Amino acid sequence: MTKQIRLNAFAMNTVGHLSPGLWRHPRDQATRYTDIHYWIELAKTLERGCIDGLFIADVLGVYDVYGDSPDSALANAAQVPVNDPLQLVPAMAAATRHLGFGVTASVSFEHPYPFARRMSTLDHLTQGRAGWNIVTSYLASGARNIGQDRQLDHDQRYALAEEYLQVCYKLWETSWEDDAVQADRKDGVYADPRKVHGIHHEGTYFKVPGFHLSEPSPQRTPLIYQAGASSRGRAFAAAHAECVFVAAPSKTVLRKQVADLRAAAVTAGRAPDDIQILEQLTVIVAPTDEQALALLREYREYASAGGALTLMSGWTGIDFSRYAPDQVLREVPSEAIRSAVEAFTRADPSRTWTTAEIADYCAIGGDGPVLVGSAKTVADQLQEWVQETGVDGFNLASAVAPETFVAVVDLLVPELQARGLFKRAYAPGTLRDKLFGRGDRLAAPHPVAALRRDARR
Amino acid sequence: MTKQIRLNAFAMNTVGHLSPGLWRHPRDQATRYTDIHYWIELAKTLERGCIDGLFIADVLGVYDVYGDSPDSALANAAQVPVNDPLQLVPAMAAATRHLGFGVTASVSFEHPYPFARRMSTLDHLTQGRAGWNIVTSYLASGARNIGQDRQLDHDQRYALAEEYLQVCYKLWETSWEDDAVQADRKDGVYADPRKVHGIHHEGTYFKVPGFHLSEPSPQRTPLIYQAGASSRGRAFAAAHAECVFVAAPSKTVLRKQVADLRAAAVTAGRAPDDIQILEQLTVIVAPTDEQALALLREYREYASAGGALTLMSGWTGIDFSRYAPDQVLREVPSEAIRSAVEAFTRADPSRTWTTAEIADYCAIGGDGPVLVGSAKTVADQLQEWVQETGVDGFNLASAVAPETFVAVVDLLVPELQARGLFKRAYAPGTLRDKLFGRGDRLAAPHPVAALRRDARR
Repeated sequence: MTKQIRLNAFAMNTVGHLSPGLWRHPRDQATRYTDIHYWIELAKTLERGCIDGLFIADVLGVYDVYGDSPDSALANAAQVPVNDPLQLVPAMAAATRHLGFGVTASVSFEHPYPFARRMSTLDHLTQGRAGWNIVTSYLASGARNIGQDRQLDHDQRYALAEEYLQVCYKLWETSWEDDAVQADRKDGVYADPRKVHGIHHEGTYFKVPGFHLSEPSPQRTPLIYQAGASSRGRAFAAAHAECVFVAAPSKTVLRKQVADLRAAAVTAGRAPDDIQILEQLTVIVAPTDEQALALLREYREYASAGGALTLMSGWTGIDFSRYAPDQVLREVPSEAIRSAVEAFTRADPSRTWTTAEIADYCAIGGDGPVLVGSAKTVADQLQEWVQETGVDGFNLASAVAPETFVAVVDLLVPELQARGLFKRAYAPGTLRDKLFGRGDRLAAPHPVAALRRDARR
Repeated sequence: MTKQIRLNAFAMNTVGHLSPGLWRHPRDQATRYTDIHYWIELAKTLERGCIDGLFIADVLGVYDVYGDSPDSALANAAQVPVNDPLQLVPAMAAATRHLGFGVTASVSFEHPYPFARRMSTLDHLTQGRAGWNIVTSYLASGARNIGQDRQLDHDQRYALAEEYLQVCYKLWETSWEDDAVQADRKDGVYADPRKVHGIHHEGTYFKVPGFHLSEPSPQRTPLIYQAGASSRGRAFAAAHAECVFVAAPSKTVLRKQVADLRAAAVTAGRAPDDIQILEQLTVIVAPTDEQALALLREYREYASAGGALTLMSGWTGIDFSRYAPDQVLREVPSEAIRSAVEAFTRADPSRTWTTAEIADYCAIGGDGPVLVGSAKTVADQLQEWVQETGVDGFNLASAVAPETFVAVVDLLVPELQARGLFKRAYAPGTLRDKLFGRGDRLAAPHPVAALRRDARR
């Protein structure tokens, strides 16, 4: 059988996620983000197209590097205002049966004891369709607002994230034995106290003696997502993640990232395909190539260069407002900015990038590529991406919400299905079981398995 | 017009809320608490009966005072396992149009900056039907699990709660001006940066310079609930709360509590009826008095004395496992326990209370009274409670879930409506506007109004 492509939809509880400016498009509905029915409709659309999951990004802070001010982010609705992603999910789960849900949460804002309960609740209410995208870093503006004048340095951040995850794993996996909940109305014992255990965690950052407040959910540990680009981040993802998001600007760059990640998984004692890798893409698909190109031209009329550079400045820490639109960025005498545009240059070493070209690139779909064409054209391209890079699938951002996703479901999905590249029906079971076909729970060689084994002794 | 009675339903994202043991009843469905459809059905039932709101309690900890162990709580499902209440609400809001939703959250577990965003998100997704029950204290077991060996003392707790609330008020009320969000597709400005302000909060416990991440929700500040029993708690409630929950064992005790609260509101510069007071009650209603009494007898067969004393021990800090069932508690040489049973003794000074009688009292409906009878009988009693105490309404707990609520909606509500004591349709607007009829926003003399005025200068 041909390898099946994974498709995720990528969204955020905000107006302008990765295409700032496009909220001005007459058909864009992202300004309905505070309406729960908007999200329920989206979930139903995605499930109609057998999309594997909806992944909801989050930031707890503001993009204020551009112009040293949050003004551009506010005016462009560039990921601000931004609401809590978690509360959207149970309502969408109630209206669907199979769609998975990934939610971003940073290890920096909430103690793992209440956080672990939130995720267990989510996994219960979705009947095992919950995923957690672990974020180890955060915007400086977010840190300041919880009273931290300085962020932890890079290595400390990963040490804290590692311990945070250990606390969560212990609560999720070792606190309640499989048969602790008896719920036997006759003998009158809901949970057998002998089978519920305090985790006795005493670490550098956290001290948690007690047991988990939630009974075991279908997956116990939610599906673990990660998006780590640095070498330390890659090692973290290789050790823990089941799905990894990347946003490579070209197949050449992606092929190397995929190879590096799979090698890192092996170094961490796991199999190369224990991690599914999803490339961030925006797909603009229409009945014909011409119509798709016309759609892209139409979209570009609403794109915001300022919004795009605001996001880019936040991601890189470089204030792009300081460079003229026609400034060739490789010529800027700054190590930081050369490193920031290096990925773009690597994608195509024959060309240079000006500020305006970077803005143009990021204005639709953020830092991921845009594919444009008929379903046949785009399916051809996706097949090439998979064949040439070894990537497992794609994390699809929207240009116009939800129009981009509706077109994917109505046009692209049937073409991929006809080619045998995409499922016609969901597999049964939890999100983890649907994606890996090995049951509901994290299994060896994932470190959770050893933790569980040790706890049983 | 006769004064309208307010009716709230009282629940918790757990198996055994206030009637531990009753989950064993063949018709009880509380073990479905992890099923989002269970909650959606409940919300629809309540809205069918024009119930004002569903109030979801929460604890982040375990009742481990009884027998110095969590074993009894686990076996009896006495508020453990317990899941996050917040995630239930948007799904219920999507299935209803008018029902309000109150959610308990302690000021001790999450920083106000991310917490304020959670509540704004909730108010957005419910279209202005969100309430927050502010809890200032917590179980010692919860404190230990977030690495705090000692809780703050009583006064410090209220000082922290006061500052926490100030931070939230500033984020909700003063950060975004009313016309900050323009969402004008033509001029391309989503939010006018000149109308979004950092709150520059620098206090004893919190330092929050930035602006709120959420744009203004329909109510901005969610409806403020509180349940404060101590004199410091009463002052806090009198200053901030719009609805106060009490659980008096008798009309005599309740009358004094209501009078004290209204007097405290006046001391705080507010009007006596700026606070709506709801007495916790469990109502067992059936077509006839005989059938209701038979139902109560049937329920009592499933009640758990151990579960009841586990809750009571947690609430009072006294280990009731140390006293024999026939021990008259007034004779125990302990100041603490005499003070704990004082409320019961005040309710009826002519009698004494044994451990078994306390257990019996609390086994159905926890620390609130139980009213039993036909709709006519119960309506008569509720009318007496309102007339003799000045209370505004009732916070109804369930014995068998959701059977108790279904009976209230099908039998009691029509009787109250026929008497002109209960609305036949919801008022329009947000939860606050429905309850007070003065608009969506907190108005003077509530302290928020002054804060808003000062910010405008």
